[in-house]
Amino acid sequence: MPAISEKGRLMPESPIRKLVPYAEEAKKQGRKVYHLNIGQPDIKTPQVALDAVKNNNIEILEYARSEGSEQYREKLAAYYRGKGIDITAGEIIVSTGGSEALLFAMGTVADYGDEVIIPEPFYANYNGFATASGVKVVPVVSSIENNFALPPIGEFEKLITPKTRAILICNPGNPTGYLYSKEEIRKLAEIVKKHNLFLISDEVYREFTYDNAEHYSIMQEDGIAEHAIMIDSVSKRYSMCGARIGCLISRNKEVISTALKFAQARLSSPTYAQIASEAALETPQRYFDDVIEEYVSRRNLLVSELEKIEGVRVAKPKGAFYCIAELPVKNADDFARWLLESFQWDNQTVMVAPAAGFYSTPGMGTDQVRIAYVLRKEDLLEAVNILKEALKVYPGGK
Amino acid sequence: MPAISEKGRLMPESPIRKLVPYAEEAKKQGRKVYHLNIGQPDIKTPQVALDAVKNNNIEILEYARSEGSEQYREKLAAYYRGKGIDITAGEIIVSTGGSEALLFAMGTVADYGDEVIIPEPFYANYNGFATASGVKVVPVVSSIENNFALPPIGEFEKLITPKTRAILICNPGNPTGYLYSKEEIRKLAEIVKKHNLFLISDEVYREFTYDNAEHYSIMQEDGIAEHAIMIDSVSKRYSMCGARIGCLISRNKEVISTALKFAQARLSSPTYAQIASEAALETPQRYFDDVIEEYVSRRNLLVSELEKIEGVRVAKPKGAFYCIAELPVKNADDFARWLLESFQWDNQTVMVAPAAGFYSTPGMGTDQVRIAYVLRKEDLLEAVNILKEALKVYPGGK
Repeated sequence: MPAISEKGRLMPESPIRKLVPYAEEAKKQGRKVYHLNIGQPDIKTPQVALDAVKNNNIEILEYARSEGSEQYREKLAAYYRGKGIDITAGEIIVSTGGSEALLFAMGTVADYGDEVIIPEPFYANYNGFATASGVKVVPVVSSIENNFALPPIGEFEKLITPKTRAILICNPGNPTGYLYSKEEIRKLAEIVKKHNLFLISDEVYREFTYDNAEHYSIMQEDGIAEHAIMIDSVSKRYSMCGARIGCLISRNKEVISTALKFAQARLSSPTYAQIASEAALETPQRYFDDVIEEYVSRRNLLVSELEKIEGVRVAKPKGAFYCIAELPVKNADDFARWLLESFQWDNQTVMVAPAAGFYSTPGMGTDQVRIAYVLRKEDLLEAVNILKEALKVYPGGK
Repeated sequence: MPAISEKGRLMPESPIRKLVPYAEEAKKQGRKVYHLNIGQPDIKTPQVALDAVKNNNIEILEYARSEGSEQYREKLAAYYRGKGIDITAGEIIVSTGGSEALLFAMGTVADYGDEVIIPEPFYANYNGFATASGVKVVPVVSSIENNFALPPIGEFEKLITPKTRAILICNPGNPTGYLYSKEEIRKLAEIVKKHNLFLISDEVYREFTYDNAEHYSIMQEDGIAEHAIMIDSVSKRYSMCGARIGCLISRNKEVISTALKFAQARLSSPTYAQIASEAALETPQRYFDDVIEEYVSRRNLLVSELEKIEGVRVAKPKGAFYCIAELPVKNADDFARWLLESFQWDNQTVMVAPAAGFYSTPGMGTDQVRIAYVLRKEDLLEAVNILKEALKVYPGGK
C-alpha cells in the first residue's frame, strides 16, 4: 500500500470536531447534548440574506470572478470605510470562508519550513493550515493569569529567526475572547516594521466587542500598509457559517496579486453564498445591537456561573463568543470524551472543546476547555449546571 | 517591504483567466467577445437543483459536516453504484469544488519536493495546486499527432524516482478531450501496483463521452483499491460551476481519514451548494441525453470548421468539451492577447486559452490554444469564422 504523506500524518485532528462521533453516539442513546464545542451560533441569519438567495433568478449557476464580484467587493469596501477602515475593492480578495483566506495568506508570505509566530492559545485550525502549507507555527505563550493579554514584545523578539515571515493574531481572539488594545496593535506594528515581517490579523469576530470596548484593526494603524494582511468572514458576523465566504484584505499590491493567483487556481468562491453575503451587508444596525446585547448577557451568565464551580478558573472575554476555562481535571481531553461516553444528568450531557488543540506547545492547556457561548441563556445555564454535576463525579480529577 | 514567498512568486497565472482584463477592456470598447476560453457551459442548470435552493427553509445558515452531509453522500454513493462504481458513503469526502479535492489529494499523498507524474497537456490549474502544495509536476508528453493517447508505459517508468508518489490523469481529458480506454487504465494500474504509487483520476467530465464510447473509471479496475483516488465535481455534470461542490473518493481508509483532517480544518463545504447538489442527483436521464447530443453536434461543427482553416490542426475529442488546436502562429499567447486588444471582425472578437499554460515542459504548446465548445452552434460558427479572419491578418504568423 502506498504511504500517506508525512504532512497528512501530521495534520492535526480538529479539537472542535474530533469528538463529534461520540456526541452522535450519545444522541443515538437518547441523551440530549448541549453543544458548547463549536462556534455555531443559534442566532438567526439576517432575513435579507436568506431572502436574497430564495429570490435569486439564476438559470445557469456560473463561476463567479476569482477575486469575488466587483459589486460585492465595492459594497464590502464601503462597509469597511463605515468602520473607519479606508480600503478599496481592489484591496479585497473574496475567499471561501476565512479558512481559505488564511491558506492564501500563508501561501503568499511563507515557504516550506518558514515560521509564523502566533500567540497561543490560538484558533486550533491555524495548526491545520500551517501543516497544509508546510509552515512552522512558533507559539508565544499568553496565559490565563494575564487574561490572555499580548505577551511582552521581548517574548516575540526572542522567537524571531531568519525564517520568521509573519506574526499572526486573532482579534478578538478565538478561543480566548481577548481584544487587543490600540497600544498592543501599535507594539506589533513596531515589531513587524523593525524585523520586516508581515502582520496577519484574523478579525472575523470584529463586530463582537463588549463593555463599550472598541475594536482597533491593524488596517487602522498607520505605517504598516505593506505589512498588514487582514482576514475576515461573514460566518460569525451574520450567523451564516454555512455560506463559506470570507476575504483577504491588504494594501500591499504584491500580496493581492499573489493571493489572486491562489484564488484563480480554484476558480471562484460559491455563487449562492456571495449573493447571501452581498445582501447581508444591508443588515440593519439593530440586528447587531440585539446580537451584542444577547452575547453580553450570555457571557456574563456563563462566566459568573463557571466561577461558582469550585476549582474552575475563567478568563473574562472582551469579544468574540468563546472563553477558556481551566477545570479541576488532569486531562480535559479525557474529560470531554467522558462527558459524551459515560455521563448523564437528567439524561443530558454537554460537549466542550478540549483546549490542548488550541496550543502548539506540547503539554499546554491540558486542563482547559474552550466553551462557546452560542446557546440561549436557559440552555447555557443548564449546560453549566451539567458541567458542575459532572465535575463532582468525574473520576479523573486533579 | 517584506518579501512574498517563493511559492507565491512561482504560482502560475491561470491561462484561462489571465486575459480576462483584456476581454473586459474589449467589451468596454463595445466589441462583442465570444468566450471559448473557459469551461463555463451555457447549458441550463437542472431546474430541480435551482428549485431546491429557492425553496429552502433555512433560518440559520449553519456549517455542514466537514465530510459532507450523510444524506448527500449516501445519495452520491447510490449514483455511482448506478454507474457501475461500487462505493459507500464512507468512501466519499465532499469538497469545495473538484479544485479542493485535488488539493486534499496532493496533501494526502505528497510532501514538499515529492513528484507527481501527469500526462501533458493537462488541466492548467494542476500546476497551481502542485505549487501551492509544494509538489513537483513531472510531465510525460502526449502529443497531438497521437490524438493525445496515453504515452507508452516505458515513458512513465523512465520518470519514476524515489520521490514519485502518484500518477495523475484527467479522464476524459481537459484540455484534450481524450478518453482513456480500459486497456490504458489497466496499464496505469499495473504501473502503480508495481511501483507502489497512488493513481489519482480527475473524472469531472465522466458523463461527457461521445460516439458511444464508454467511460471506464479507475474505481472500476480491480486490484488497486488502496491506490485509487478519484476526483469528481458537480460543476460540469449539471452545469453548476458556481456551486463549488466536488468530492474525493477512495477505498483506501487512510486516504479518507487523512483527507478528512484537511476537510475539518476548513470546517465545511458551502451549505446552499450542497442542497443544490443533492437535488441535482434527481436530474432525469433525458437532461443528459439532450446535453450530450448538443455537445456532440457542437464538437462536430467545431472540429470540421477548424479543419477547414489553413494551417490549423485539431485533435478530435472523445469526451469533455474542449479541444486543443494547433494554429499557424509563432506564439499563441501573443495571438490570444492580440485578438482581444487589436482585432475585430464586424465589431466582434474571440477569447481563447493559450495552451502553453496546460504544459509544464517549457516551450511546449506555444502554437496551440484550448477551445471550449460551450457555446450554442450559431455562436460557435461565428466564433470560428472570426478566428479564421483573424489568422488571415495576424502579423505574428509562423
